[in-house]
Amino acid sequence: MTSTNHPTAGTAVGYGQLEELYRDFEIEHLNPLWTQVGDLMPMVPTAKAVPFVWRWSTLYPLAQRAGDLVPVGSGGERRAIALANPGLGGAPYISPTLWAAIQYLGPKETAPEHRHSQNAFRFVVEGEGVWTVVNGDPVAMRRGDFLLTPGWNFHGHHNGTDQPMAWIDGLDIPLVHYIDTAFFELGSEDLTDDSTPDVSRSERLWAHPGLRPLIGLDQQTSSPIAAYRWEHTDAALREQLALEDEGHPATSEPGHAAVRYTNPTTGGDVMPTIRAEFHRLREGAHTRPRRDVGSRVYQVFEGSGRFLLDGQRRQVGKGDMLVIPSWTEWSIEADTQFDLFMFSDAPIVERLHFNRTLISEGA
Amino acid sequence: MTSTNHPTAGTAVGYGQLEELYRDFEIEHLNPLWTQVGDLMPMVPTAKAVPFVWRWSTLYPLAQRAGDLVPVGSGGERRAIALANPGLGGAPYISPTLWAAIQYLGPKETAPEHRHSQNAFRFVVEGEGVWTVVNGDPVAMRRGDFLLTPGWNFHGHHNGTDQPMAWIDGLDIPLVHYIDTAFFELGSEDLTDDSTPDVSRSERLWAHPGLRPLIGLDQQTSSPIAAYRWEHTDAALREQLALEDEGHPATSEPGHAAVRYTNPTTGGDVMPTIRAEFHRLREGAHTRPRRDVGSRVYQVFEGSGRFLLDGQRRQVGKGDMLVIPSWTEWSIEADTQFDLFMFSDAPIVERLHFNRTLISEGA
Amino acid sequence: MTSTNHPTAGTAVGYGQLEELYRDFEIEHLNPLWTQVGDLMPMVPTAKAVPFVWRWSTLYPLAQRAGDLVPVGSGGERRAIALANPGLGGAPYISPTLWAAIQYLGPKETAPEHRHSQNAFRFVVEGEGVWTVVNGDPVAMRRGDFLLTPGWNFHGHHNGTDQPMAWIDGLDIPLVHYIDTAFFELGSEDLTDDSTPDVSRSERLWAHPGLRPLIGLDQQTSSPIAAYRWEHTDAALREQLALEDEGHPATSEPGHAAVRYTNPTTGGDVMPTIRAEFHRLREGAHTRPRRDVGSRVYQVFEGSGRFLLDGQRRQVGKGDMLVIPSWTEWSIEADTQFDLFMFSDAPIVERLHFNRTLISEGA
Amino acid sequence: MTSTNHPTAGTAVGYGQLEELYRDFEIEHLNPLWTQVGDLMPMVPTAKAVPFVWRWSTLYPLAQRAGDLVPVGSGGERRAIALANPGLGGAPYISPTLWAAIQYLGPKETAPEHRHSQNAFRFVVEGEGVWTVVNGDPVAMRRGDFLLTPGWNFHGHHNGTDQPMAWIDGLDIPLVHYIDTAFFELGSEDLTDDSTPDVSRSERLWAHPGLRPLIGLDQQTSSPIAAYRWEHTDAALREQLALEDEGHPATSEPGHAAVRYTNPTTGGDVMPTIRAEFHRLREGAHTRPRRDVGSRVYQVFEGSGRFLLDGQRRQVGKGDMLVIPSWTEWSIEADTQFDLFMFSDAPIVERLHFNRTLISEGA
Repeated sequence: MTSTNHPTAGTAVGYGQLEELYRDFEIEHLNPLWTQVGDLMPMVPTAKAVPFVWRWSTLYPLAQRAGDLVPVGSGGERRAIALANPGLGGAPYISPTLWAAIQYLGPKETAPEHRHSQNAFRFVVEGEGVWTVVNGDPVAMRRGDFLLTPGWNFHGHHNGTDQPMAWIDGLDIPLVHYIDTAFFELGSEDLTDDSTPDVSRSERLWAHPGLRPLIGLDQQTSSPIAAYRWEHTDAALREQLALEDEGHPATSEPGHAAVRYTNPTTGGDVMPTIRAEFHRLREGAHTRPRRDVGSRVYQVFEGSGRFLLDGQRRQVGKGDMLVIPSWTEWSIEADTQFDLFMFSDAPIVERLHFNRTLISEGA
Repeated sequence: MTSTNHPTAGTAVGYGQLEELYRDFEIEHLNPLWTQVGDLMPMVPTAKAVPFVWRWSTLYPLAQRAGDLVPVGSGGERRAIALANPGLGGAPYISPTLWAAIQYLGPKETAPEHRHSQNAFRFVVEGEGVWTVVNGDPVAMRRGDFLLTPGWNFHGHHNGTDQPMAWIDGLDIPLVHYIDTAFFELGSEDLTDDSTPDVSRSERLWAHPGLRPLIGLDQQTSSPIAAYRWEHTDAALREQLALEDEGHPATSEPGHAAVRYTNPTTGGDVMPTIRAEFHRLREGAHTRPRRDVGSRVYQVFEGSGRFLLDGQRRQVGKGDMLVIPSWTEWSIEADTQFDLFMFSDAPIVERLHFNRTLISEGA
Repeated sequence: MTSTNHPTAGTAVGYGQLEELYRDFEIEHLNPLWTQVGDLMPMVPTAKAVPFVWRWSTLYPLAQRAGDLVPVGSGGERRAIALANPGLGGAPYISPTLWAAIQYLGPKETAPEHRHSQNAFRFVVEGEGVWTVVNGDPVAMRRGDFLLTPGWNFHGHHNGTDQPMAWIDGLDIPLVHYIDTAFFELGSEDLTDDSTPDVSRSERLWAHPGLRPLIGLDQQTSSPIAAYRWEHTDAALREQLALEDEGHPATSEPGHAAVRYTNPTTGGDVMPTIRAEFHRLREGAHTRPRRDVGSRVYQVFEGSGRFLLDGQRRQVGKGDMLVIPSWTEWSIEADTQFDLFMFSDAPIVERLHFNRTLISEGA
Repeated sequence: MTSTNHPTAGTAVGYGQLEELYRDFEIEHLNPLWTQVGDLMPMVPTAKAVPFVWRWSTLYPLAQRAGDLVPVGSGGERRAIALANPGLGGAPYISPTLWAAIQYLGPKETAPEHRHSQNAFRFVVEGEGVWTVVNGDPVAMRRGDFLLTPGWNFHGHHNGTDQPMAWIDGLDIPLVHYIDTAFFELGSEDLTDDSTPDVSRSERLWAHPGLRPLIGLDQQTSSPIAAYRWEHTDAALREQLALEDEGHPATSEPGHAAVRYTNPTTGGDVMPTIRAEFHRLREGAHTRPRRDVGSRVYQVFEGSGRFLLDGQRRQVGKGDMLVIPSWTEWSIEADTQFDLFMFSDAPIVERLHFNRTLISEGA
């Protein structure tokens, strides 16, 4: 189905009648399948989004400039700058389903509370000093932490320090926009709780391995853990590599440790539309080339290495972000120990039963 | 958040610096949230798709003309004419998630076999004589039947008679295209089985109420029933109204009988992305005005009545089709007994936990 | 672990001290594992229940005699005579989990309404004329029908004719008794509805293949179908054998058609503790010898044949009932077309993840 | 239905005929319902098991004496002494479904490896020095730890020290025995790994809050966490009480903190048949009187207080164990901070949909 012009038999009946038919289709808001089936129904996914890299050395200074020029607050709501996939015609989307941004909060600034049906997370590649307040629970943000604000939870941010802080936001804005499921509500202009505890109440209730509070026995759509702390992620990855060294199965591939952030009430993904994982490659390790249905985004947390994206080599280092669109062939090679945060739309793809993966045999 | 221009404070720092910042964003493939948050994250869904009606009296003659002018077969694959929502800029989509078309097959014509990841169904408002062959199993198509070809099942159609036949197709093409999950494979040019049995093998195995064959005990992603026959649908609706007459709970609202087509291996929707139902209103009955997240399409099977769509009255009769975009207020009024086939993207919305419904209290 | 006397080392320390220890254990309500581990924890299940056959020619006349001598009603509640497995020491249990009985209702008799946490079904091997009233819905009982009264549904029976009628009851009484989950409540002494419709309201709402009423979209613990009618069961089995004749996969084994009765809201078993199936073997067909964890009961509906139970041949014909305890090796041989109703405790075994099956390779 | 003698009408027809009928029933292995329905189907559960307390001051010395007199090893397999409910006629069962024992291992002793379909756990009220080896993974046992050996996992124990150690075992032996689902297999006489690490490999892979290793993404029947360490349990309980002090919802009842041990791959119970929880009451706190379907066992970990069991007061302290049979009314009162380990058969009851709880309103 490479060629998808309408059938050549059309010539037999006269181009004029066909032209007229197509004009009448248009008038009646109709559209024949046969002239476009190849675009609409390709042999394999042909994403308009392209693989692309954004440098932290570009992102952070631009966020700083925005910090100087643009106030935060009602109307614009957040000082967040979205990564716009060059293949998507200027839309502020890193992929058709995912939105990724760098958000910047100056000293003593506050981003007011609101809530929306879109699911959101934060990941911190550097800095600290901001508290995200989720449904009135202040959650400290520190390097390596992964923080959740699932759909329809009120949340705001405030910077309690004299230093600015930046982090990345990930949301399902493009999907929600596309399928028309967006709801939004403004909340308190000031934060409902401006205290700055080290540990959130959510963690105190929920972040104990394998333990659930008896007041939290119902299955929840999204994880009740507001912050997945770096110390746990780091320990889990370190142990996988140590177990591998001791000769036990623990890593996904040789030299490749990986964890998925999960919802302790189900064992599944943290939110209905977004998967998040953390990957660590040993120096010199590499992953097998593969293609997946769905799009994924990486941010380098530490170290340096390379992504091969449909055969193209992209060298990346700390803070750099990149997107891998659906069915792109990709693999990773680590120059140093290589720590990578990853998020994707896999829950969407899997819940709708479109998931497929093709792993290269020879690699 | 009705107005969402970027913050006016921008003027304070000088329009020049901001202009330059925005230009640099563009160069670096970045896009600030604050200038567009109102479009991206509205208070309630603001669908670009609009409510719209297509008349059977328009659809069928145009399909006939296409039958005369356009061959069916490889390349264009199907003689299917899609209903293009006027709000979606010419895309062949009835809504952002759903594709609906009239398909037409002339006497003795064959549409060759293929398969694709998109989920598909057929519904027959009039005529008969075509067999859909699903994985080698010929399935007769007759008025009132609802027929499935779930994702990645080979299927073709052939008309064994001297009369043309038209029916409607429903697929999840737009969603699959948008999230880049499309796979396609050509099959046999001729049909693998051109016999014309009254009942398919699928039905002989599966269409017995509450009974599963012991060879079919695994949970299946999509329903194994290839055809839901009109006689069963009609009987179920008739009984609901009779039970209501006898004073027993059976109908969804007074005078409103309704069934959902389901997957007997799960009790859930027939396919992972598409819900299908059949509704029957008594003469003079009406439904309560409501708004739903997600889009739905109706085809009138028999009778006449009205849809109220965001306050606009649309009179419809046999074969007419209409779309209700997300969060449109809608209700139905029946002039006669009013039989309606409905399909929607509700499984997508529900599996991703975006479902909401607002039912008017006063109605 | 065939021998499980306590360790012989006991002699070394002197029998006296050990004797004293065991006596002290007994005083303190303690019980050492080492003296009985072989009984408690055998290598494979060693059921106390034994394979056994009850003849219809015995059951029915005894039920008739009970009909003459014993009234039905409050106190004893039902004129039901339980099949007592000879291995279970006189307990009225056909297996440790299941209770099976013949119930007999004379002309114009009524068994009053009650409800209990135990799950119950009826199966009719001959006769008609009784209506089971389940939550006020009268359900006709006819030859070949399988009827449900799941836990905590009020139900009574009445015979509207001048002829007696007998059928079999199956319940989870032994399990419920053993794990102490029994609740019981008396209902109306007279029936809440003594009408005698051909079809129950439950069937009118629910017994349409693949269709659910919109008022019944919640998942239900037990099937809402009150009666699975013989005409559907028979048709499903007939079609499986016809499909086999035509060369298509449909039967469980050559010449062995089978259906499971299921809950249309889940696709799973009809009740949380009881599985029910119907099997048809062609004349001369046989099943492969196998062992299953859990107990099962068969009643011959029509035809004649043999069960091989741990090597023992048992010839059976219409109405005869037999039990196969856990891990018994069993197979079936058909002399004629052989129609068999089966129920088992498989849902208990499977929900607790104890299921295993061993199928003989050579057979 | 308190009295359930067979109907008095029997006198009318002559006692002789009835006697003869009953004799014939017996000969034919039949058993009438009407003479025993009250026992079989009571109004509420009437457990034969009784509430009972065993003292640690009794259990431990008896286990010590067994340590001196009875070797551990093949044949008897384990030096485990079961708590035999006085209502269960001498059977070594603490309830109809649960088995509880004190197990004792002398200095340098080894309990050889085996596996069985029964699910097992250990809980340590005092001592340390033994490693449980589960599928080759040595798991240290220390005070407050809760350790799993789910069904069909090879496991053995060895004491690496010069001190004896005792702990409690909990299994589903009675249920497995009753429903005939027991399988057993001997393993290595010596342990497959006699190393003595502080932390098991299982914990290194799995005991990170909200994180799953990518090699462990499948849903597992039982929890892959071999040991739930006291430090986590204690912290979770401490935080609940602190949150309560700060005015936030966290405790089950005032002054009553509680966690459930769960399977991180599902969020559900640790094993298919056994629930385990840890409860902490503040000094002076009490729980509301309630009745539950199913049986539960408590062991006092620290502190002292009282259980009220169907109105009877039982004072208990460290190490004491007690059983609460189905539908017994129970509540707890704490004299000091009162730490309690609990296990129950709730997963059995809930999976079969027999669960009910009655909480006293006035308390």
